[in-house]
Amino acid sequence: MGPQHSYLRLVGDPVLASALEAADAAGQAVRGTTSPNPPVGAVILSVDGDVVGTGGTSPVGGPHAEVNALAEAGEKARGGTAVVTLEPCNHTGRTGPCALALLEAGIARVVYAFADPGDAEGGGAEFLRSHGVPVTGPLVTGDTGLDGVPQFSVEPWLASRRLGRPHVTLKYAGTLDGFAAATDGTSQWITGESARALVHLDRSRRDAIIVGTGTILADDPRLTARRPEGGLYDHQPERVVVGRTDVPVDAAVFPALRYRGGALAEVLADLGARGIVDVLIEGGPHIAASFIADGLVDAVDAYTAPALLGAGIPTVAPAASTATTIGGISRFTLRSVDVVDGDIVSVSTAHRG
Amino acid sequence: MGPQHSYLRLVGDPVLASALEAADAAGQAVRGTTSPNPPVGAVILSVDGDVVGTGGTSPVGGPHAEVNALAEAGEKARGGTAVVTLEPCNHTGRTGPCALALLEAGIARVVYAFADPGDAEGGGAEFLRSHGVPVTGPLVTGDTGLDGVPQFSVEPWLASRRLGRPHVTLKYAGTLDGFAAATDGTSQWITGESARALVHLDRSRRDAIIVGTGTILADDPRLTARRPEGGLYDHQPERVVVGRTDVPVDAAVFPALRYRGGALAEVLADLGARGIVDVLIEGGPHIAASFIADGLVDAVDAYTAPALLGAGIPTVAPAASTATTIGGISRFTLRSVDVVDGDIVSVSTAHRG
Repeated sequence: MGPQHSYLRLVGDPVLASALEAADAAGQAVRGTTSPNPPVGAVILSVDGDVVGTGGTSPVGGPHAEVNALAEAGEKARGGTAVVTLEPCNHTGRTGPCALALLEAGIARVVYAFADPGDAEGGGAEFLRSHGVPVTGPLVTGDTGLDGVPQFSVEPWLASRRLGRPHVTLKYAGTLDGFAAATDGTSQWITGESARALVHLDRSRRDAIIVGTGTILADDPRLTARRPEGGLYDHQPERVVVGRTDVPVDAAVFPALRYRGGALAEVLADLGARGIVDVLIEGGPHIAASFIADGLVDAVDAYTAPALLGAGIPTVAPAASTATTIGGISRFTLRSVDVVDGDIVSVSTAHRG
Repeated sequence: MGPQHSYLRLVGDPVLASALEAADAAGQAVRGTTSPNPPVGAVILSVDGDVVGTGGTSPVGGPHAEVNALAEAGEKARGGTAVVTLEPCNHTGRTGPCALALLEAGIARVVYAFADPGDAEGGGAEFLRSHGVPVTGPLVTGDTGLDGVPQFSVEPWLASRRLGRPHVTLKYAGTLDGFAAATDGTSQWITGESARALVHLDRSRRDAIIVGTGTILADDPRLTARRPEGGLYDHQPERVVVGRTDVPVDAAVFPALRYRGGALAEVLADLGARGIVDVLIEGGPHIAASFIADGLVDAVDAYTAPALLGAGIPTVAPAASTATTIGGISRFTLRSVDVVDGDIVSVSTAHRG
């Protein structure tokens, strides 16, 4: 299940598959800095198929991914191909429409992965086609063909638009036998250094991290996104603490948004109103179970260490009263499995409605 | 972490790496049919490096892997290379020594993965070297370099020899959130058809399968190894039921070995005395936890479906009294991670003492 192979399945041409992978990498690099706009990535290929420009969405008010990529490409864009993870916008907001920018730069072909769902923003493909530019897209419709295709940076934003609330990723780290910590609460460290570095990079790409009060009381985490070499990433997610139990006012997590109960859907609605699109649930096991029980998990990032504890605090601990039947199982699509210095990191996404 | 790449790391030459992979595949194909002998695999390369013979160990009393591979190669073996997963034996038992057979066939070089630990059987490498045949091996010593190298078919046998008891593999199938079944006990089916077919193939390669009485009462499984197209595999594992609780005399698992309590180490000792080398624990969660708590798990085969249940019967359920601290964690080595039709299948092995 190599990623190259899977991009190739989406786009059918090795050069375009590589460009799509590079475009998404550019989108991933700006994740966390673009909300409420989507973190789009774009690559410009010259007439000869060389990468001559790469760009991601700038923070709100700045240029979109296509415009950044075109700027890098300059005159080499003329007659070339633009590969974009989201349909180019057709909308004059704080910036001019990307569809027009591509046309004016002399781009001869446009390929994009996902349709833009916006009433105002959408229609870029139609605009380009009506001006004689061949457009291939959307490459992805529904869930078809997403098995084994790594999650695109724009997907949380797209899901958030569709669901009318922030996209929720449940993340946990545990042993093969499903424990996040020993029975005495000790958990440092289950996964290895490389996996933990990945967790911090991932935090730097989220709008917010949610934890329960139990995690604050047990671990007193800072929940910051720290670089492996020390120091903080430029973008830090909003920290959010949910639960009725009191936590110390001097807990390391503060300053943080604090919700003292209420339905999780209401918490998400409030976060959405604050412009938050992409949230990560980092535990503990009870809040994880609550999000699952409420049907509010859109993706699962699982970090599994090849180790056994035999007993301990499970990664997901439902209330004893929660009853399930196999018919109520929520099926996800496995998007990627990576071995990170001997630990397993998998990403799965919910079927799209 | 491609397997080719990892064999290459062990042996340093692409042709030998491919031969080693093919030799192990021949060993895997005879797993379950050779105990108490090891399921060895051998490949003969011609002078030109072509595969001219492949063989696995025959059932007790029959030829060893090298002799089967030499028989297929015939005269093409002369001047060639033998690649074997275990050091060729130097012992005249029911069959003649393989080291002598390789010498007589005119093999010019021998490469082997693991040393033969037997006092009587070992010494094949020394014999060959003393007769002027260059020998490369053992390729594997201790745990070094086994990260990402798929588990060899001879490893359970080697571990069993070292430990003086059968090798124990804990197998479970569950959801991303760690549940093997819903709270009402329903579990058919969590993983997909391809993963289930792999479970049956795996059963056909084991000497015995152990389950707890809870699994018999909940699921009444047959625990046979069934082919995807219907019908049984030629080799069926011994079925073993452990636990104090009564189970119906007409349970589908019978005929089976029945142990009504006693320490798990004693159960394993008795199985070992019956010539059983390689056992698989198929559940349920309580017996899995007991094997982990007693330090009797040598490998973990995890089948994970990208799905959430939110609550249910966990894959491993320790007694409430079991206390752990992170210092007591058992670290394993991740040997392989495969995506099987959208499910994750990982194999991890204990560090070798």
